[in-house]
Amino acid sequence: MKKTSLPTGMHDKLFKRARVMYQIERDISDLLMEQGFNRIETPTLEHFEVFSDTINASNYNFFDKQGELLSLRPDITSQIGRVIASTRVNTPVKFSYSGKVFNYNEEMRGLANEHTQTGIEIVGFPAKDALQEAILLAKEALEVARLKNYQFEFSHAAILQTIFDELDLDKDLIEELSTAIRDKNITVLHEFTKSNSSEFDAFLKELPFLFGEATSVITRARNLVQNSQVLAALDDIEHLLGWLGNDFAQVTVDLGQLPRMPYYTGMMFKVFGEKVPDAFVSGGRYDKLFERFGAKKLTAVGWAIDVDSIYQAIHDELSDRGGAR
Amino acid sequence: MKKTSLPTGMHDKLFKRARVMYQIERDISDLLMEQGFNRIETPTLEHFEVFSDTINASNYNFFDKQGELLSLRPDITSQIGRVIASTRVNTPVKFSYSGKVFNYNEEMRGLANEHTQTGIEIVGFPAKDALQEAILLAKEALEVARLKNYQFEFSHAAILQTIFDELDLDKDLIEELSTAIRDKNITVLHEFTKSNSSEFDAFLKELPFLFGEATSVITRARNLVQNSQVLAALDDIEHLLGWLGNDFAQVTVDLGQLPRMPYYTGMMFKVFGEKVPDAFVSGGRYDKLFERFGAKKLTAVGWAIDVDSIYQAIHDELSDRGGAR
Repeated sequence: MKKTSLPTGMHDKLFKRARVMYQIERDISDLLMEQGFNRIETPTLEHFEVFSDTINASNYNFFDKQGELLSLRPDITSQIGRVIASTRVNTPVKFSYSGKVFNYNEEMRGLANEHTQTGIEIVGFPAKDALQEAILLAKEALEVARLKNYQFEFSHAAILQTIFDELDLDKDLIEELSTAIRDKNITVLHEFTKSNSSEFDAFLKELPFLFGEATSVITRARNLVQNSQVLAALDDIEHLLGWLGNDFAQVTVDLGQLPRMPYYTGMMFKVFGEKVPDAFVSGGRYDKLFERFGAKKLTAVGWAIDVDSIYQAIHDELSDRGGAR
Repeated sequence: MKKTSLPTGMHDKLFKRARVMYQIERDISDLLMEQGFNRIETPTLEHFEVFSDTINASNYNFFDKQGELLSLRPDITSQIGRVIASTRVNTPVKFSYSGKVFNYNEEMRGLANEHTQTGIEIVGFPAKDALQEAILLAKEALEVARLKNYQFEFSHAAILQTIFDELDLDKDLIEELSTAIRDKNITVLHEFTKSNSSEFDAFLKELPFLFGEATSVITRARNLVQNSQVLAALDDIEHLLGWLGNDFAQVTVDLGQLPRMPYYTGMMFKVFGEKVPDAFVSGGRYDKLFERFGAKKLTAVGWAIDVDSIYQAIHDELSDRGGAR
């Protein structure tokens, strides 16, 4: 009966789940505003072009009555890019937001197609300072949410971007290579380097193993490439981790981390837990964001917290300790 | 340019507007949970049937990839009706919620098609107590939001429902009569009573004037009808206002108030300001809500606050006092 069943990927949250999720979202939002991040609220619906140049089948897309193709937003950062590029908001500026984002997954029942995302954007400030501020604030937000076990993982968008650019691959080959990197598929990567031989062969074949404790991974990576842009990116990661120091004892690196969104240009980071599949936080530097909207280049650093994943981890931690379900 | 323009009825909120709207929503949500109202979060998308039996053109409707017609929710109360009717939630129960609702208005540019609604549902409790609790809590929520000037207006769904039932009108005539009542159109109401003469002629012709100070309106109405159900509804209003007493000094009545949603069955109330066109609060008793979902009849009382209207009024009040814009 349609009246009493939910559409694919939609869920009700009641009682403790709804209360704790609300509290996480509220406490992080309050923290961000207290730290001087201006609140911004962007609409749930946008023209599809805001998110990608071509129609993305993993979004909810539909025509409105005027025949315009709209998307339920999959992402709030692109919207803030639109706002900054198209209005007279003065930069530098710091924004914070919280709201629903939507992704259409129809394969697996039980998957959530609607998530609550809370995040920040630091725009037009010196990139290095912005990155450090963003990372420290992400840690603080996770503490405010009372998350106990989590781990930062760093990478750099310029590494794979440089390789894709230098190899001059067409769209299909980029897709094939990306999938192999994402899946850490050793066989496909070996085959790829045979048919697309380049200065990056050694690096690409070793890429599935270039994750883990930061210093060791960076040292191994330096021995596999001579390309100056890739080496500069490795330096960036090393400098940042040196600066973060002991506060981030458990930091790891994954050089095969693919950008969550196409606009990333520099350092990227994710925060993971042990049992929750999705990242708690995804963030990084994405200076290219504004060019899509016809504006000048601006430094931009930001992150988004997935409140649903945080709740899942906290719920598991409470259950492990025999807490109330 | 599609990339930098917003769809009809969609708006960005920045800086003070976004901050104050967030604070209003947060402070009311916190109050409701402190008062023992369990938080509930329902999804943004539902099968269209949850909201009405036929397709409602003033909703955002679209087909998903499985060919099912979905609506962006125009209303959260219907969703909570679905949850209570179709899951094993124990009643009596009190719920509170906050989220976005969507209505498709394409005529007027500048109109907001996305609103933030925060509200409560009191389900399965004795109706009189629930109504009193709901009204006092609505007042408290408006105080928490720091709204200064507002006025409660009461009505009763059984008055017009009895008349529609007794006249045994078809769908088009109900629509015509409803429009005339909504517009307080004296001419059309006179013509209507000529072609559809009944015991309600005197009442219907006077209906455009049956609003204002409560005691006077109820006294005048009693002289215009003999129908026992309408008289019982007038008694209900009088008893409630007697109970509310001096706390609600400015209370008015509008017997031509049409139900905001079709599920209302008893007392209804709205809260208005002087300059803001939309009601700050809409609420009342709607025992019929659950029958739509195949469940047994349950007493239900609730209200929803329109956070956008509250912000508009507070902004105007601040501006009137020379406050920062």
